[in-house]
Amino acid sequence: MISEAGPRLAGIGFGSPPIVICNSTILRYHGPALMKSLEREFGPPAVIRIGDGERFKNHRTLLKIYDGMFRAHADRNSWILAFGGGVVGDVAGFAAATFMRGIPFVMAPTTLLAQVDSSIGGKVGLNVAQGKNLIGAFQQPAAVLSDTRVLKTLPKKEVASGLYEVIKCGAIRSELLLRYVERNLDGIVNCRSAEMEHIVTASARIKAAVVEEDEKESGLRMILNYGHTVGHAIEAATDYKRFKHGEAVAWGMIAALGYAEELGLMQASSSARLAGLIHRVHRLPSLSGISLTQLWNGLLRDKKFRSGDIHMVFLRRLGCAEVHAGIDPLSLRKYLKRFLHSKGSIV
Amino acid sequence: MISEAGPRLAGIGFGSPPIVICNSTILRYHGPALMKSLEREFGPPAVIRIGDGERFKNHRTLLKIYDGMFRAHADRNSWILAFGGGVVGDVAGFAAATFMRGIPFVMAPTTLLAQVDSSIGGKVGLNVAQGKNLIGAFQQPAAVLSDTRVLKTLPKKEVASGLYEVIKCGAIRSELLLRYVERNLDGIVNCRSAEMEHIVTASARIKAAVVEEDEKESGLRMILNYGHTVGHAIEAATDYKRFKHGEAVAWGMIAALGYAEELGLMQASSSARLAGLIHRVHRLPSLSGISLTQLWNGLLRDKKFRSGDIHMVFLRRLGCAEVHAGIDPLSLRKYLKRFLHSKGSIV
Repeated sequence: MISEAGPRLAGIGFGSPPIVICNSTILRYHGPALMKSLEREFGPPAVIRIGDGERFKNHRTLLKIYDGMFRAHADRNSWILAFGGGVVGDVAGFAAATFMRGIPFVMAPTTLLAQVDSSIGGKVGLNVAQGKNLIGAFQQPAAVLSDTRVLKTLPKKEVASGLYEVIKCGAIRSELLLRYVERNLDGIVNCRSAEMEHIVTASARIKAAVVEEDEKESGLRMILNYGHTVGHAIEAATDYKRFKHGEAVAWGMIAALGYAEELGLMQASSSARLAGLIHRVHRLPSLSGISLTQLWNGLLRDKKFRSGDIHMVFLRRLGCAEVHAGIDPLSLRKYLKRFLHSKGSIV
Repeated sequence: MISEAGPRLAGIGFGSPPIVICNSTILRYHGPALMKSLEREFGPPAVIRIGDGERFKNHRTLLKIYDGMFRAHADRNSWILAFGGGVVGDVAGFAAATFMRGIPFVMAPTTLLAQVDSSIGGKVGLNVAQGKNLIGAFQQPAAVLSDTRVLKTLPKKEVASGLYEVIKCGAIRSELLLRYVERNLDGIVNCRSAEMEHIVTASARIKAAVVEEDEKESGLRMILNYGHTVGHAIEAATDYKRFKHGEAVAWGMIAALGYAEELGLMQASSSARLAGLIHRVHRLPSLSGISLTQLWNGLLRDKKFRSGDIHMVFLRRLGCAEVHAGIDPLSLRKYLKRFLHSKGSIV
């Protein structure tokens, strides 16, 4: 579909060549097919390359993008095509949201995580020294072009990281999707086209439906954070180095399952089924060496958490999530101590 | 009203102290009254001071604001009070639009220009090396608190600069407002409260009504650019140094009047009346030394203009503006040559 990007984008109304924002890795693998299609339809696009990785999601990269846009004589009739993973989408989307007070942009996500998660929902932004995604905007892309064939070039660990978010989508909204992943795991981890198309479409639909009901994140959208309370804390506790985002969320879901069981919110058989699926995907990096203090400090980064107003998402059953307020910090802390002690095998 | 800011803002629902963004000049003159009122209502506000003047409307100042906000432990429940002229409003508004994907902000504009123009309409943004306001967003303030009493401390030239935008509002939408300014000019240039309140309210209403009909600037909003085509070019031709924005717009209106007359679009008596009023306000800085080439290059900064798709706003009569497309560049250039030659006395 990347090779049909030109006609597809012309079909939704674009008439001039885009400004393509991407990193060199993705450009090398899939750039030629995309560029050929765009050039044939619109004439030669401008290309702005940015660094590959989370550490480039900052103001320095943003200013580099603005600069490239001015050099390409961009104006308020220009449009951006963000071609890459989550970092490219977030920073290019933020550039689109702020260049001349907003120009249209299209996402062509190239990782499973970006296809099922970050490209859907209109959150764009940057990291600053004080934390991740603290500067940003809500800006919906004009279109999202997800070509599951580009996923074949991804490392297995990267595919797994995206798959955990797929499993999260199933866990909170669709037991059917969970069952599909259970039954087709082999095809999925090997990036077979039919399976990838199924899970990307299903997950994107689930996320889009939740976001549509709550675009500015006031209530329902919180269920998308299933596994993220502890997941974010695990990432912070390890300085965002040991775990990919999806991997941390996977551990976060396992922690949430155990705690939900302890609170009597969920049947042990359902917990075991979901945790089992998560562990079958790929080997998760170990939790060993993370202290309770580090993990707790990670949780305390959230001001609401700090103030004692603790919300967590739990499953009532597989396919159905709910937000719980009034979590008791003492009881949670005790549970997490045991969770770390058991190295995550508590469920 | 600045001294009642606390209760007024509590009245529209704010419950915590704001982050006040301002410059040192305004803080010295009117800070104590504002702070006292805010502190009594909400507790002590955080204050972030930025440099005074257009050259501080940039990314460096923005990053300084973000930094101050983090140090004040701001989060997505925080809100910003922009206390100052257009620069403070634009950059603080942009910080509000992008901090944690958008937090509420209130404008308390302290110049006549900001009260009648930049605080209304939701345009916020920054300058970059390539030009003014090229990075930005549309973000409506939760409220605009315009206290006309603070205008008394403004230099006369600053009052005049704002008054030209008031006259523009009258010219495009309200002959009644024009007549009011003609009859009360003395009280206005001396910042008498009743007169200032009248013109600020009338102008803000006019701008708000136009913006409301066309928030994202697709058509009608263009009439607010009356006098701005040539005005912007005059500013650019003199490197934004010789003229205040309002003064350049004043010359731009005079140029537009002369050209409209030449095109047979407007009666000479109406032109003379409006030009006469503009000249009565204050002595405009001279146009001498600006070459046709400099002025034309200023116009060519606009890509639409460059492509030959030239729009200009003209008055059909006093109080009624319309956008004209298909302006002939040759004829406009000839007219501007004569306009510069006559040093603006062509009308």
